[in-house]
Amino acid sequence: MALAIASQALGNTANNSIPIYQNPSHSAKDRAADLLSRMTWVQKIGQMGGVRRLLGSDMSFNQTSYEILAEYQNGILGFGENYNLASDVLPIANMVREEQIHSTPLGIPYITVTDSVNSIYNLGGTLFPPSLSLAASFNLPLYKLAVGVIRDENVAVGTRWVLSPELDLAKEPHGGRVGEMFGEDKYLVGEFGTAYVNTMQQLDSNGYVKVACTVKHFVFGQSSGGINAASQYGGINHIMNEQAVPFIKVVRNANPYSLMASYSAVDRVPMAANKFLLQTVLRNTIGFNGVIMSDAGAISELHSLHLVSNSAEDAAVKALKAGLGLELSPGQPAMFPNLVTMANDSTIVSLVNDAVQRLLEIKFVTGTFDEPLPTMENLKSTLRNETHLDIARKASEEAIVLLKNDGTLPLSPPTTNSSRIAVLGPLAELLVMGSYAPNNSTEPLHGKPFLQSLQDFIGADNVDYFQGVDITDISDSSGISAAVSVARQAGLAIVCLGSVSVLAEDGAANWRTDGEFFAHPSLGFPGLQQDVLDAVLDTGVPTLLIMTGGQGFVLQNSTVNRASAILHSFLAGESTGEALVDILYGSVNPSGKLPITLPPDSGSTPIYYDYLPSDVGSYWSLPVLDRANPPFKFGYGLSYTTFDFSTAEVRITSDNTNVSVLASVTVSNTGSVLGKEVAQLYFRQQYTAIETPNKQLIRFTKIELAPGEKTMINWTIASDELGYWQNLEWVVDSGNFTFWIGSSSRDEDLESITIAV
Amino acid sequence: MALAIASQALGNTANNSIPIYQNPSHSAKDRAADLLSRMTWVQKIGQMGGVRRLLGSDMSFNQTSYEILAEYQNGILGFGENYNLASDVLPIANMVREEQIHSTPLGIPYITVTDSVNSIYNLGGTLFPPSLSLAASFNLPLYKLAVGVIRDENVAVGTRWVLSPELDLAKEPHGGRVGEMFGEDKYLVGEFGTAYVNTMQQLDSNGYVKVACTVKHFVFGQSSGGINAASQYGGINHIMNEQAVPFIKVVRNANPYSLMASYSAVDRVPMAANKFLLQTVLRNTIGFNGVIMSDAGAISELHSLHLVSNSAEDAAVKALKAGLGLELSPGQPAMFPNLVTMANDSTIVSLVNDAVQRLLEIKFVTGTFDEPLPTMENLKSTLRNETHLDIARKASEEAIVLLKNDGTLPLSPPTTNSSRIAVLGPLAELLVMGSYAPNNSTEPLHGKPFLQSLQDFIGADNVDYFQGVDITDISDSSGISAAVSVARQAGLAIVCLGSVSVLAEDGAANWRTDGEFFAHPSLGFPGLQQDVLDAVLDTGVPTLLIMTGGQGFVLQNSTVNRASAILHSFLAGESTGEALVDILYGSVNPSGKLPITLPPDSGSTPIYYDYLPSDVGSYWSLPVLDRANPPFKFGYGLSYTTFDFSTAEVRITSDNTNVSVLASVTVSNTGSVLGKEVAQLYFRQQYTAIETPNKQLIRFTKIELAPGEKTMINWTIASDELGYWQNLEWVVDSGNFTFWIGSSSRDEDLESITIAV
Repeated sequence: MALAIASQALGNTANNSIPIYQNPSHSAKDRAADLLSRMTWVQKIGQMGGVRRLLGSDMSFNQTSYEILAEYQNGILGFGENYNLASDVLPIANMVREEQIHSTPLGIPYITVTDSVNSIYNLGGTLFPPSLSLAASFNLPLYKLAVGVIRDENVAVGTRWVLSPELDLAKEPHGGRVGEMFGEDKYLVGEFGTAYVNTMQQLDSNGYVKVACTVKHFVFGQSSGGINAASQYGGINHIMNEQAVPFIKVVRNANPYSLMASYSAVDRVPMAANKFLLQTVLRNTIGFNGVIMSDAGAISELHSLHLVSNSAEDAAVKALKAGLGLELSPGQPAMFPNLVTMANDSTIVSLVNDAVQRLLEIKFVTGTFDEPLPTMENLKSTLRNETHLDIARKASEEAIVLLKNDGTLPLSPPTTNSSRIAVLGPLAELLVMGSYAPNNSTEPLHGKPFLQSLQDFIGADNVDYFQGVDITDISDSSGISAAVSVARQAGLAIVCLGSVSVLAEDGAANWRTDGEFFAHPSLGFPGLQQDVLDAVLDTGVPTLLIMTGGQGFVLQNSTVNRASAILHSFLAGESTGEALVDILYGSVNPSGKLPITLPPDSGSTPIYYDYLPSDVGSYWSLPVLDRANPPFKFGYGLSYTTFDFSTAEVRITSDNTNVSVLASVTVSNTGSVLGKEVAQLYFRQQYTAIETPNKQLIRFTKIELAPGEKTMINWTIASDELGYWQNLEWVVDSGNFTFWIGSSSRDEDLESITIAV
Repeated sequence: MALAIASQALGNTANNSIPIYQNPSHSAKDRAADLLSRMTWVQKIGQMGGVRRLLGSDMSFNQTSYEILAEYQNGILGFGENYNLASDVLPIANMVREEQIHSTPLGIPYITVTDSVNSIYNLGGTLFPPSLSLAASFNLPLYKLAVGVIRDENVAVGTRWVLSPELDLAKEPHGGRVGEMFGEDKYLVGEFGTAYVNTMQQLDSNGYVKVACTVKHFVFGQSSGGINAASQYGGINHIMNEQAVPFIKVVRNANPYSLMASYSAVDRVPMAANKFLLQTVLRNTIGFNGVIMSDAGAISELHSLHLVSNSAEDAAVKALKAGLGLELSPGQPAMFPNLVTMANDSTIVSLVNDAVQRLLEIKFVTGTFDEPLPTMENLKSTLRNETHLDIARKASEEAIVLLKNDGTLPLSPPTTNSSRIAVLGPLAELLVMGSYAPNNSTEPLHGKPFLQSLQDFIGADNVDYFQGVDITDISDSSGISAAVSVARQAGLAIVCLGSVSVLAEDGAANWRTDGEFFAHPSLGFPGLQQDVLDAVLDTGVPTLLIMTGGQGFVLQNSTVNRASAILHSFLAGESTGEALVDILYGSVNPSGKLPITLPPDSGSTPIYYDYLPSDVGSYWSLPVLDRANPPFKFGYGLSYTTFDFSTAEVRITSDNTNVSVLASVTVSNTGSVLGKEVAQLYFRQQYTAIETPNKQLIRFTKIELAPGEKTMINWTIASDELGYWQNLEWVVDSGNFTFWIGSSSRDEDLESITIAV
């Protein structure tokens, strides 16, 4: 519509009287170049930062602070405090946006850039579970619907650039950000990441990118001790064959407009100053051509934390030279404003011009110069509409993984008051959604904790709730015996344990052990939670364990052997409490699969299914850590029905130029209820020039089958997909390849076929 | 003497009638080249392997197996089973040695190559504690005496080449080989390694190297999950600034004749095939010019484990091309014999010639061609003589670290029968010496466990021993209450806990959780040992904790707060039991310092004092793992006296070509007994081009002071020592440097001085 108006305006005016940058008929690239040529040095530097925290809590707006900041940092706009309501924020954001367009010399609009993990940045949107949970669905079509919802709600608040998706591999379980990631597998992460970016960056009816994406954090996920900003060792083969893999796929298949460099020092060079990884590897080898931005304080930390810059000026220059073009700086002072004094340095000037050109192109492709500001009317019809809530419910249902079931589940529908249930454990009354979700876990504006969902379904009178212990306090075990009594009286116990990852302002913030700024040496349940579970299991009362948290937990043998059923619900969306109830009572058949391998012990790390062959130790070794057979392995998850995999076949096909592998398998629902299964295809080349994983996922497909129904799944894999990186070269060798087809990464769930390719 | 005879023989013969290689007046290099020119292809290949297991248990010798092996593997000789007595082995070894000299075409003698960690390879030598324990002494002069003993005893059995020292950094506490290493610090490891090699490789009176050394394992120590043969990620800055540092120092300052490549795949390239690290880095950058050998099965594992070679032949070729020249292959088949079919490949021929030249040079420099075989007479006068045993006792005394003392220690000498002591815990009756010590921990041929040492000192009637629990069994806690009763009755308890690292044939082998082929996810005491300790501490009876094992253990807060005293004795030498008693009763004042930081938790890894600045997390991070302040940090250890550090000074000096830092401090014994203290100097450059450790050790000096005595310590550090490696270049920047002087790596034990260099 805006485009139509602009075109009409053009018709009434001589083309040469309108600057190219204001003319939508020109390409984004040309418009950006034209605008760049009109900008002062200070205006250029201004684009390389922005105002990230427009509003404080309770909608506070500090005009003086804003103006001081905006003088040298005026490219991007962020909303600040998550707990403000989107509908309250919009008018103020629009006021600032308008002012920027109309009261600055060239009228260069802000582009609004925010985090967007579960939902839009502020309260008021549809709340999905975060990435790890959605990855557990292994359902890409459903995921695309979910991202479409989040995208449209972002557009409705005027956010046209998000700081997602996070493509880091969840291979360090001690870290606090596992729940933000898509799991441990590079293929799975790449597929979900590609789906995210392609969905977010879809073009609107005017041909503008709806929401530009930022893939992050290049590279992160295996920091020392799991600490957020800590270093990692990685050599280049490790990085290219593991951490970079999802980035390579997403860059090549979805063209994300920006990328965030991580906080980490990689091989002792902080990523914000890592020219080798950002230029030689990311730009030249991988082919990324968008904006590279800093993680929030990362440029400043070159000076203050890593100690590789001896001044703020040096930090700014090092980051610019490494390839960074945008500084996200919620904390002040920012570093890039130091560049304003360097207008006479031709190297700096050239790099700044490159950076601003890329930044302006994003503004043009997203229609920031052309489309009208978002309206309250559209916001109200978009946020939390019925379609959106329905998709969120479905996403939550598929994000839950059933890990054990002795037949206790599904429960019979409650018929009389005599079917009482004891709910125990401190996680039952929280709706824990991760450290980027604008909701309150103790009193959610949207959604209900599991306890309330169960009470609403079977009646509060039928539920005996007792917390038993605090989440993190280890000094008070006095409630355990009462919890045991409650379990005994009810005859069926549901124990809800896990960890808390929420915003700092959340009602449960004091119980956090997980989330962006946390690392947890212990991988068990925090505090005395395991003690409650043990005590209840000691009674012999049938017990269901529901785990909550954006991480894997150690499941002790005595828990696995004695619990009647075990579910992992990861981090919640607003419908997760209800989805859990639906699964418990069988109206929803669980279909999630583990996107991470659960650690057998706090010290048993790293643990993941795609270890290198030598990582189990030599042939005469006696490893205590059995990497090959962890108790709950990637890709594993149960259903209320059973599936049979049969007539698996793998063969080669080729035309004149390409060789492909065709793999197929027939999956049958051999049980008695409708269910979904995830067929998984793994491979390994028998011998490779450098060490490659014992097996790795190459395809997965989720299917729904009625009882007795069967379907054949066909996969085509180009032989080029079967290679690996050696010293920055992609190598595809011929040789024997083994393919495994089945329902999880566990050997016992897979059939193997070896062929020559 | 042999040299004199040879020279005399030369006098009676025309020089040109004796082949150069038989003429000791020529250089080792020329003799090797001459011999090489006379050798057949098969003879050359034969030198690149050997017979590692001459004898089985009970002195069994299989002539047929020996001959089959020796056909293509006849360069080196090893003794096989450790538990055979050296005096029994010598005649058979000499028989085989003689036969090789007299019955093969060129009479090329074997060189005897064995492990030598605590002592000579076989039973019968003086038994020292292994490396971690000796490093805890921080006493280099004493260490050189100890190595001199082990060297002379090796010469006495004819071993002229050892598979030591191990220069790996003990930075992965889950691994089983920490006890074999010199600790976590690269400087400390380099100093001990240099002392080892310079002492071992001393020249004998004939000018021959007494015992050639093998530095190992290049590179190892941070394998995934602590598993022996597992991979590591390391980039080149990490390797050069950390793992390679001791190798660089020892290669440049002590010229070891050989080096062992590790089992690990580094950045996905197994070290046995890692041409980049062995050629570009080790040979060209570091300057190592000796023999590179495989770890035992490492060449074979290229094919069988890492899957980077598709055949045994390919494995042999890859290893040779990477730079390996000797295959240590206790398990058969070996890979290098496959080279016998490749005499027509000029590249292979050239590499084999290079390798054999280096191997022969070691034989010439060690006098293998010239000196007589070892005699039984010399063996008997050398092994376990009084001087040797005295040095071993002193070494054990200084290898024990006192970590806490509330004043309970030293104990008063026993005067009456009423001073009873309860000894509890399963480690009291074992003498655990590590997985390379030829002794039996349950019935040691030499040395006494702590329990027996205490009984001998205060009378068996005064000691109430109760094991309490097994070492690894977690099913039986029934003995704990009896242990508690024994403690209560005695009124003083000594609880002996730890882990077992012994040879596979040892009486305690079933209790092993530590040693070469083990990894331990848990860093606590194995089994239910902590439960015994907790139960005894609960009683309030004064309790001393003695830890045993080649590793750090988690010391829980409740242990540290309640134990009266805590000692770590690491792995034992034959005198460790008695040394512990001497320390308990004050006839020896403890003076050891921690060569490793103790882990606060099983999941709190990596943990070491010289972390990178960013490894604590960013300025707004809330790390749960507090790397800066672990409870027991590198360099820490208590004494029965007190020391004062005063008037610390650091200044610059320069002559025309060099700049040096002069550091000094005055240390006073301010207590009432004679004692030893380790003065430690650490440094950090304020800003560096890549991230460097928060601080690192650069000097240490151990001194003995009488009460009231003081001494000034002066250190000179060339400015060139203050650099770091960046992309294979050694960088020395000017700038501000902070130096810390004190008694441990803890901030509270250090005084800091910052100067410009």
